[in-house]
Amino acid sequence: MTGRLYGLGIGPGDPELITLKALRVLRGAAVVAYPAPETGDSLARRIAAPHLDGRQEEIAIRMPIHDAAFPKDDIYDGAAENLGRQLEAGRDVAVLCEGDPFFYGSFMYLFGRMAERYPVEVVPGVSSLTACAAALGAPLAARNDVLTVVPAPLDEAALRARLEGAEAAAIIKVGRHLPKVRRVLRALGVLEGARYIEHATMASQRVLPLASLPDDAAPYFSMILLHRRGEAWS
Amino acid sequence: MTGRLYGLGIGPGDPELITLKALRVLRGAAVVAYPAPETGDSLARRIAAPHLDGRQEEIAIRMPIHDAAFPKDDIYDGAAENLGRQLEAGRDVAVLCEGDPFFYGSFMYLFGRMAERYPVEVVPGVSSLTACAAALGAPLAARNDVLTVVPAPLDEAALRARLEGAEAAAIIKVGRHLPKVRRVLRALGVLEGARYIEHATMASQRVLPLASLPDDAAPYFSMILLHRRGEAWS
Repeated sequence: MTGRLYGLGIGPGDPELITLKALRVLRGAAVVAYPAPETGDSLARRIAAPHLDGRQEEIAIRMPIHDAAFPKDDIYDGAAENLGRQLEAGRDVAVLCEGDPFFYGSFMYLFGRMAERYPVEVVPGVSSLTACAAALGAPLAARNDVLTVVPAPLDEAALRARLEGAEAAAIIKVGRHLPKVRRVLRALGVLEGARYIEHATMASQRVLPLASLPDDAAPYFSMILLHRRGEAWS
Repeated sequence: MTGRLYGLGIGPGDPELITLKALRVLRGAAVVAYPAPETGDSLARRIAAPHLDGRQEEIAIRMPIHDAAFPKDDIYDGAAENLGRQLEAGRDVAVLCEGDPFFYGSFMYLFGRMAERYPVEVVPGVSSLTACAAALGAPLAARNDVLTVVPAPLDEAALRARLEGAEAAAIIKVGRHLPKVRRVLRALGVLEGARYIEHATMASQRVLPLASLPDDAAPYFSMILLHRRGEAWS
């Protein structure tokens, strides 16, 4: 019997925001894998740590995780081969995914390499999107709002075009793109209403008006939320 | 001591997709409230039912829940007053919310009425958005995709305009708007790649190509997902 590959949504950061299902799968899997930086701790593993009992084999998939320019194909090829061997040995493999595996998650790279050859199940998790809205204490979208999720790495013109008509918007992966995002929001006249959330639901969570944030780099796990009610964003 | 009002995300349908935090809050609250139709079962209560132990006071907020035209202000005013009395008596109140409270949830109507007067906390949940992607077995959005969430009740021209440029799109609240949505997707040339998901993660879950679905009404809890890779949606 081939094992099963799980893409396991473990939630946005607070270990208590894991689902009962993810916890059951996590504890039942023989192998737990997770993305990790080249050296040091894996955020995904840190989120799941209170739920690990030390009996599982752990596989860290190490790479420069937030460097979009780094070619990761070889690393994912190798990881898929490695995890595939575990599955062929009949062992279930749970891949820990921050937030939700299919919401801008790196799990898609393993999924794309393995889904045709092995049984794969994705367990959805609480995404950073709704975790940020909860941290902010304001609805993300309601009624017939159109909600647009825009990655900050897009170029300035694209960012502007995509944000122009949205009633509600989330700008994700802010990181070093903060100054550019701020320019776009100022040009659209919506800087004042924008809210900034960093490390939502973690101990290091910060929530503040974007206008109060110093204009340098934000961490990768940060988000800007906008909501326009009637004519004004608020 | 005033009690605390919780907007409790209980996930998309599978009772196992509740978080540990929501479960803790649910079990600790003296009062559990939930939206319900005028007669019959509440979906939110049904999702949480395996986790209720019968010791809590239950308050059903009854109304024609999916009839957008029905004026619900009086009902929400009354519910806010009723729940406010519980809070003033020092009792915590957990409002059960399908999916996530701040992702197109009706909790916003209570939140808007109560957040300034009482301590309110929102516990984020797994939303239908990522649950549908997991059910479909395909990433919702990745890399620098712009993801657009579009409510089906929008008029045909608005639907078309909002869907035109999106790399990834979710059309929510399909219900009786199915024929209109289908016309829009056909006009945009993306009907073939569209996938339809109904009651994600529930026993009644259905996943099929939109083109295979008979052209009559869908249930309210249904979603259409689209993803365009390069030139073609798939």
